[in-house]
Amino acid sequence: MKLHSYFRSSAAFRVRIALALKGLDYEYAAVHLLQGGGEQFADTFKAINPAALVPVLEDDGLVLTQSLAIIEYLDETRPQPPLLAADAAGRARVRALALAIACEIHPLNNLRVLGYLSKTLGVSAEQRSAWYRHWVETGLAAVEAMLAGDPRTGACCHGDTPTLADICLVPQIFNAQRFEARLDHVPTVMRIHRHCLTLPAFAASVPALQPDAE
Amino acid sequence: MKLHSYFRSSAAFRVRIALALKGLDYEYAAVHLLQGGGEQFADTFKAINPAALVPVLEDDGLVLTQSLAIIEYLDETRPQPPLLAADAAGRARVRALALAIACEIHPLNNLRVLGYLSKTLGVSAEQRSAWYRHWVETGLAAVEAMLAGDPRTGACCHGDTPTLADICLVPQIFNAQRFEARLDHVPTVMRIHRHCLTLPAFAASVPALQPDAE
Repeated sequence: MKLHSYFRSSAAFRVRIALALKGLDYEYAAVHLLQGGGEQFADTFKAINPAALVPVLEDDGLVLTQSLAIIEYLDETRPQPPLLAADAAGRARVRALALAIACEIHPLNNLRVLGYLSKTLGVSAEQRSAWYRHWVETGLAAVEAMLAGDPRTGACCHGDTPTLADICLVPQIFNAQRFEARLDHVPTVMRIHRHCLTLPAFAASVPALQPDAE
Repeated sequence: MKLHSYFRSSAAFRVRIALALKGLDYEYAAVHLLQGGGEQFADTFKAINPAALVPVLEDDGLVLTQSLAIIEYLDETRPQPPLLAADAAGRARVRALALAIACEIHPLNNLRVLGYLSKTLGVSAEQRSAWYRHWVETGLAAVEAMLAGDPRTGACCHGDTPTLADICLVPQIFNAQRFEARLDHVPTVMRIHRHCLTLPAFAASVPALQPDAE
């Protein structure tokens, strides 16, 4: 397997965690999203993924895109340990938590969106940071409400073992901390974040430990 | 079953299509996203979904959120007709297409984001429309590249029967047309869109036919 990744990409971080949880080895192909106008726009990379986004996972001739689709694929083809709950209601909760991050928070705060705000709309650095923090803080408050007081929440988002929900949560918190978003209003989220980082698969997948880390 | 929906919500539209494809009856509970400062922010609705987002599906005591999680749940609990492909590689493609819309296009263009651009950042109506069209046109070009020339593309996104990918595609095109985005660069997308609208489950789920349509 070959993972096209950028150390700081939250979506690539998710796939790294899933691969590590499954104990799968892979070749790391770095795609620098800033250098040379963005290596993701190079013809060689767009031949692999025309959407010009990381991550991409190559597995046995298949080219897989979209982090959540990749992780569901890994879970179907390498079922142990499972990354979704055992029952349909639990899986719906795990996926809803993951999507509350992947659809409601992350898309508003990725590099190309922040770039559009600055370059095309001409908003100030201060307004751009306020935009970032607004969506992270609002979005994580919703995730906190889904987690706090729900008896299915354990050491992790759903029970005591990591699922797709935790795989989305941890990279989002790294991102939030880098942009200095407020996090004191989401104590359950932060408790789970700290717990996950004690697990080797999460700890090994953090941006600073990747081959292309700066 | 009870669906909390807003006729114009793309995410609610997705769930309506899935319910119709499965042949499931449900009670329609309208949540007006604009009236009275937004009925989704009312305490009664936030007691159901603290994230203050539609759709929400109530099924046998379960409260389900996030459209893609709801549709995966429906597909697991009511398997016929299947809304994902039969093989893991096909399911990965269907989910990637769905997420290319649900994560890369729709979150940038929903009501609360457009509201933030106008009210908080003070961008002009013209800039706001340009923002909308930029993400729709760029995002749909990526979807087109995934569909065009792939032998797995059929009358629908993946083969000749509707999947989660088509369920995401059609509402996004309705939205794009409402905001007058350019669509002549995505002929495969539009061919599939037109085909899906010939199917009763899609045709019955369009915004104009919902009880709360204006």
